[in-house]
Amino acid sequence: MHIGRDFNYDLWRLLDITRGLIYKLRERELMKYKVSMSAVIILHTILILEEKAIQARIAEYLFLEPHSVSEMLSKMEEKGLINRIKDQKSKNMIRIEITEKGYDLYLKSTQRESYNDILSVLTEEEKTNLWTILSKLRKKAAESLDIELSQMYPPLDSWAPTEPSEKK
Amino acid sequence: MHIGRDFNYDLWRLLDITRGLIYKLRERELMKYKVSMSAVIILHTILILEEKAIQARIAEYLFLEPHSVSEMLSKMEEKGLINRIKDQKSKNMIRIEITEKGYDLYLKSTQRESYNDILSVLTEEEKTNLWTILSKLRKKAAESLDIELSQMYPPLDSWAPTEPSEKK
Repeated sequence: MHIGRDFNYDLWRLLDITRGLIYKLRERELMKYKVSMSAVIILHTILILEEKAIQARIAEYLFLEPHSVSEMLSKMEEKGLINRIKDQKSKNMIRIEITEKGYDLYLKSTQRESYNDILSVLTEEEKTNLWTILSKLRKKAAESLDIELSQMYPPLDSWAPTEPSEKK
Repeated sequence: MHIGRDFNYDLWRLLDITRGLIYKLRERELMKYKVSMSAVIILHTILILEEKAIQARIAEYLFLEPHSVSEMLSKMEEKGLINRIKDQKSKNMIRIEITEKGYDLYLKSTQRESYNDILSVLTEEEKTNLWTILSKLRKKAAESLDIELSQMYPPLDSWAPTEPSEKK
């Protein structure tokens, strides 16, 4: 039985495992606040979306299945991190609001030593290159999936490279 | 309520979402073979590890929880993709072997149009840069988690960049 080497495949696997390792480190860091990675990401998203924070929009923003977001929101509501509020105008619309307790937890979670520590091994130029390369991959993947990129985090313009990394 | 911007955080989120989008595309591609991403990755791993393919080693190789690997292997055994074989020497040791059906499926899965299509937006130089940058991040993350990097896929030496990407 033969296994061929495939550089594109190896590159994907490297991306996947690197993400997995960093994810694990961040999860460990968040354990001290007794909060999951997904809860923290949803808190962040609610703060960004403000009055547009409804379940469907959050799912789109995070590229998650609506039912997963729904489950997460129920758990977060139980813990008193968010409230689901019926919209005054359209009663079918449920807006998600962050509570004081949720906001406190969000603020604590912005201590992101895990990310800072890992990314400290890169030069500024490498970070810019990584940003540029990942942006290209995300754009292509979103097109293939027929997803509107402007509906996702991080926004396209969130990091304008100081120097274009492509030279020709 | 204030949300600060944090470039390291945004870079992580970009990495995470890009991985998620590519994952989704690959999953869709694999649907035509009625096989999951994890099953294909485990088949590939069994082929690489050969006679060293035991459950604990596979879990380590893929940075997965042993119980997740165990569940996956049970499903794959039911589908006739693998066999669990008691080792001749130490009866407690269960080796995983790929079946003819499993190998056929693996071969089909090496049609990786999804990855090739996405990565076609990068120049060779960008691919090399991405490899170098991710390797640095993986090394740092593995050290922080106290994991032996040589036990993971892809191997360190699997892609020697033709040109060093760092210039000073």
